[in-house]
Amino acid sequence: MGDISRFNGNGSSAAGDGRRKSCWYEEEIEQDLRWCYALNGILHTGESQYQDIALLDTKPFGKALVIDGKLQSAEIDEFIYHECLVHPALLHQMNPRNVFIMGGGEGSTAREILRHKTVDRVVMCDIDEEVVDFCKSYLVANREAFCDLRLQLVINDARAELKKIEERFDVIIGDLADPIEDGPCYQLYTKSFYESILKPRLKEDGIFVTQAGPAGVFSHTEVFSCIYNTLRNVFRYVVPYSAHIPSYADTWGWIMASDTPFTLDSEELDSRIRQRINGENRYLDGKTFASSSLLSKAVRKSLAKETQVYTEDTAKFIYGHGTCHKQL
Amino acid sequence: MGDISRFNGNGSSAAGDGRRKSCWYEEEIEQDLRWCYALNGILHTGESQYQDIALLDTKPFGKALVIDGKLQSAEIDEFIYHECLVHPALLHQMNPRNVFIMGGGEGSTAREILRHKTVDRVVMCDIDEEVVDFCKSYLVANREAFCDLRLQLVINDARAELKKIEERFDVIIGDLADPIEDGPCYQLYTKSFYESILKPRLKEDGIFVTQAGPAGVFSHTEVFSCIYNTLRNVFRYVVPYSAHIPSYADTWGWIMASDTPFTLDSEELDSRIRQRINGENRYLDGKTFASSSLLSKAVRKSLAKETQVYTEDTAKFIYGHGTCHKQL
Amino acid sequence: MGDISRFNGNGSSAAGDGRRKSCWYEEEIEQDLRWCYALNGILHTGESQYQDIALLDTKPFGKALVIDGKLQSAEIDEFIYHECLVHPALLHQMNPRNVFIMGGGEGSTAREILRHKTVDRVVMCDIDEEVVDFCKSYLVANREAFCDLRLQLVINDARAELKKIEERFDVIIGDLADPIEDGPCYQLYTKSFYESILKPRLKEDGIFVTQAGPAGVFSHTEVFSCIYNTLRNVFRYVVPYSAHIPSYADTWGWIMASDTPFTLDSEELDSRIRQRINGENRYLDGKTFASSSLLSKAVRKSLAKETQVYTEDTAKFIYGHGTCHKQL
Amino acid sequence: MGDISRFNGNGSSAAGDGRRKSCWYEEEIEQDLRWCYALNGILHTGESQYQDIALLDTKPFGKALVIDGKLQSAEIDEFIYHECLVHPALLHQMNPRNVFIMGGGEGSTAREILRHKTVDRVVMCDIDEEVVDFCKSYLVANREAFCDLRLQLVINDARAELKKIEERFDVIIGDLADPIEDGPCYQLYTKSFYESILKPRLKEDGIFVTQAGPAGVFSHTEVFSCIYNTLRNVFRYVVPYSAHIPSYADTWGWIMASDTPFTLDSEELDSRIRQRINGENRYLDGKTFASSSLLSKAVRKSLAKETQVYTEDTAKFIYGHGTCHKQL
Repeated sequence: MGDISRFNGNGSSAAGDGRRKSCWYEEEIEQDLRWCYALNGILHTGESQYQDIALLDTKPFGKALVIDGKLQSAEIDEFIYHECLVHPALLHQMNPRNVFIMGGGEGSTAREILRHKTVDRVVMCDIDEEVVDFCKSYLVANREAFCDLRLQLVINDARAELKKIEERFDVIIGDLADPIEDGPCYQLYTKSFYESILKPRLKEDGIFVTQAGPAGVFSHTEVFSCIYNTLRNVFRYVVPYSAHIPSYADTWGWIMASDTPFTLDSEELDSRIRQRINGENRYLDGKTFASSSLLSKAVRKSLAKETQVYTEDTAKFIYGHGTCHKQL
Repeated sequence: MGDISRFNGNGSSAAGDGRRKSCWYEEEIEQDLRWCYALNGILHTGESQYQDIALLDTKPFGKALVIDGKLQSAEIDEFIYHECLVHPALLHQMNPRNVFIMGGGEGSTAREILRHKTVDRVVMCDIDEEVVDFCKSYLVANREAFCDLRLQLVINDARAELKKIEERFDVIIGDLADPIEDGPCYQLYTKSFYESILKPRLKEDGIFVTQAGPAGVFSHTEVFSCIYNTLRNVFRYVVPYSAHIPSYADTWGWIMASDTPFTLDSEELDSRIRQRINGENRYLDGKTFASSSLLSKAVRKSLAKETQVYTEDTAKFIYGHGTCHKQL
Repeated sequence: MGDISRFNGNGSSAAGDGRRKSCWYEEEIEQDLRWCYALNGILHTGESQYQDIALLDTKPFGKALVIDGKLQSAEIDEFIYHECLVHPALLHQMNPRNVFIMGGGEGSTAREILRHKTVDRVVMCDIDEEVVDFCKSYLVANREAFCDLRLQLVINDARAELKKIEERFDVIIGDLADPIEDGPCYQLYTKSFYESILKPRLKEDGIFVTQAGPAGVFSHTEVFSCIYNTLRNVFRYVVPYSAHIPSYADTWGWIMASDTPFTLDSEELDSRIRQRINGENRYLDGKTFASSSLLSKAVRKSLAKETQVYTEDTAKFIYGHGTCHKQL
Repeated sequence: MGDISRFNGNGSSAAGDGRRKSCWYEEEIEQDLRWCYALNGILHTGESQYQDIALLDTKPFGKALVIDGKLQSAEIDEFIYHECLVHPALLHQMNPRNVFIMGGGEGSTAREILRHKTVDRVVMCDIDEEVVDFCKSYLVANREAFCDLRLQLVINDARAELKKIEERFDVIIGDLADPIEDGPCYQLYTKSFYESILKPRLKEDGIFVTQAGPAGVFSHTEVFSCIYNTLRNVFRYVVPYSAHIPSYADTWGWIMASDTPFTLDSEELDSRIRQRINGENRYLDGKTFASSSLLSKAVRKSLAKETQVYTEDTAKFIYGHGTCHKQL
């Protein structure tokens, strides 16, 4: 038995390697392109009326929330998505006090909003109660946000809710699935929705911001350019911006829109960050936003030439994003 | 909200498909050949002094025990492996009362032995207490076996244990990892071990049987033919046999050896199965064993020509089976 | 530059490993089970009116013919499939002189038949001329067979051809895709086809044999047991048999049927092999066939209980085998 | 036979889908992260004294050059890498006439340089003649460049060549593998190489630019930050910049360095592009470079804190980039 330590050492290293690479999550980015990450475990799985949901423990990205087979949010880099979604709009608004989130059931969007000292009311309107409950239970980083008294959680279709209420908001945030043809969120990206339902619920100097799908050199034609063009038909000032998110294996896009011009330079943004936001941003500051909102020549040309507008009748297809993850 | 049922249907089906294929376990059969099965979940994982262990919930094979990255035993077809390992030897023995298992910590080998009415004592000698505890806790099918009063569990190296004890057995069963060069189980497959340690612990009409690695048309040259040839140098009568095990993606081999001839035909085997075994076999009966022990021309020729004998000095390599899963 | 040999060595080994595992062919055995083999290259690809065809150079199995995404025939082990398909029927027939192949465009079935000294005429009837031409050009092992003057190649639907001709055959061989519901070969496996079209083209002591799909402990329920039961309704004597084919990742099945009993034992088979077959078989001999035709208890029970018969109206589904690879 | 068109349609669609996803190239980005793209074919493979090389026809990225198992250059987006590597340095230089490329055997770097009207001499110094010949033969897009009379091709180690020659260059470009510990290119990234060998071969207002490895929010710590810090110890002005390259599944980095300050704003860059570059850039213009050279907060912080300098003694490890693809 004198050899045990040797066998053990031997065994462990073999085991370590073997085991490390055996369980994989395979995400189809496109039909002929896959992004595969090794798993430590499958922490929780659930199923709601609308969606399947899982919390995975991945090796490269930490814990990851997967909805209907698509990675939504990974521990390691969700801060990029959520800082980019929330802070530019809130910082450009003069004094954001109330904010409406369409979707956002994960809780991270609310968490970032609640870091703003000016904010005294956040309405998060997600249609899927089970997903919200799942995230409340398992996403430790958002627990505090879910308990914040300034947060009002509404379980409803965002369109129905915005139609019903009379409150007007400083900022409205779209944290929804991409607008795919026949997809359930499509109607939350149309010109008529923006004009007749959403815009009336924004204050005069209010800002709307939405996630806007992949924004890579090629992938921006899937939905990013159309969302941009649709918003250009509804608001006077529209600012598209983008950032590479490692766990998405792509550059992602957001678009900010308002009838009030966006005039802050990066020093002014940095100064508002210091004044208004509790804690320190990890990703976004003035220079980062300046860089993010300067799109590359290829994307700028393509956006300038875009003519399609999302209406109830037209739609564009985006591969594999067929289900509404956060909102109907 | 009138559209929800449509969206839901849409979403569910997409979800169903997407989710179903996303988590995979990837087993390297050889360096350039992989066997990949979809996972429902990773039920339990653990680590012992010697090995890594996991209980997976796989889609094609049900619950599966994986040790050091290799699938050991799958709910759907472990009965093939364990019926083939246990019953031919016990049935051919005149009146098997005591049985010694080298390894076997999973418990399934003991479970099959304990179905024999003649058996009043089983010694299971496995070196890895944590693996045994893991299997006791999680493998529901073997719970009864682990509690059977006829079973004595010893935590020790099988060679050391066989050297120490003076009892002689009707049947000794090798349920160990394959004999790979520098691998920890190698010394439990050598001619000198069989001659000086194992054989003295068999009664005169005792039978030894061992799992003997892959036994496919090509894969039998990895270790099966050498174990066969080694045993042929130690025992007068040696019977190799094989069966295809779906979850292993290969045909598997076992070898039975004794100094007493094996003379039963398939009717006699069937009659002993009826008399001696509680419950009904799912895989093995007289005709199945007749078929299993008639190897194909290609394998028979190769076995006949085999000249290598496992000694402390020689060894043969088998890919990726580098760690001793059950026994040092 | 003195370090180059070191770098080179370093580079080569890394390169070797890296390169070796980078290109993979992925075959979906079932929806949740994949068989993946590394590729050296993609030698030829083509497309016919009916099917897609490729010749791959695989690392584990050598050159492999892939039709409509399914591996049909691999250099390393196609001899198992083709020896099992051809020789048992021809050997059991008293004096096989003419043989009809339904499908078989690859040429390997003809090659094995032409090794029989008694045979003076082989009709190979495949619907897909391009596939036949592809195989003629690229499958070196079958070149001689394609040039044999005893071989008559007919490009036609096998059913139409058998209906049209008046010749009767000693042996008819079905080398077709599996009978899947709505699949194009389904009608070549029905009771009415066997009774009214095929059987009349067999001589009185003629033998029909067909490939019969997967025949593993579980997979035999896909089509093997139904083809068996259908033939049992048409012929007096029916012999199912099976063998594990490594590149298929499963045990495969064939079924032989006749109105004349099959009475040869394994010595008689061996003697006919010596007398009638040129060259030496690699896989099949008397004992191998004895073993192959003794099915395991699990499969025997399941076959005995099978009640389904393939008719124009009923069908059974087999996953992923949806296209007729060889014949309409 | 009236059903053929139906079968055919059926078959084709199944075939199309099945075939489309069967051959994959699998690139290990990290040990637990894979990037997998479907293949149409493997066009050419070769092996040089130093490296393995292959030209793949990929579905998502078009033709792709793979060296030692890593995708180097894909038809669809190599323009991003090469425009970013070449144009910023040449544009910032007052009047670039002669340019030295370390590595660059693919030819794309030379192609971009030769678009500059000011350039009358390009020296491309690659150690691997076979790779250069392979690219000359197969990369159609670079054929013209390889034939340009201004291009001088030298087969040699870049360090040895720079030591030997006395010419001084307006721009030197590093198009080499990443500096990995014990890797063959490591010595072409050290402080002493930059100081004593490279810098003396630059004219006084000369500019050095090098590819600098992954530059993502996390991946920039592999080598990007250290190359940056090393260059900061050798040159007075150092500009790091980055861009997302879809086929690399990451953001990539380049670093430009000089003892002359970089003072152009984006309008001046655009004006020089119009004056000096033949044809139109697809990716890079003034705004794109402004965005690329504004790094995100996370990366800027990390670069500012970097203390490591590449010397002959220290090194940092980057996973899986173990071989020098282009240069020793």
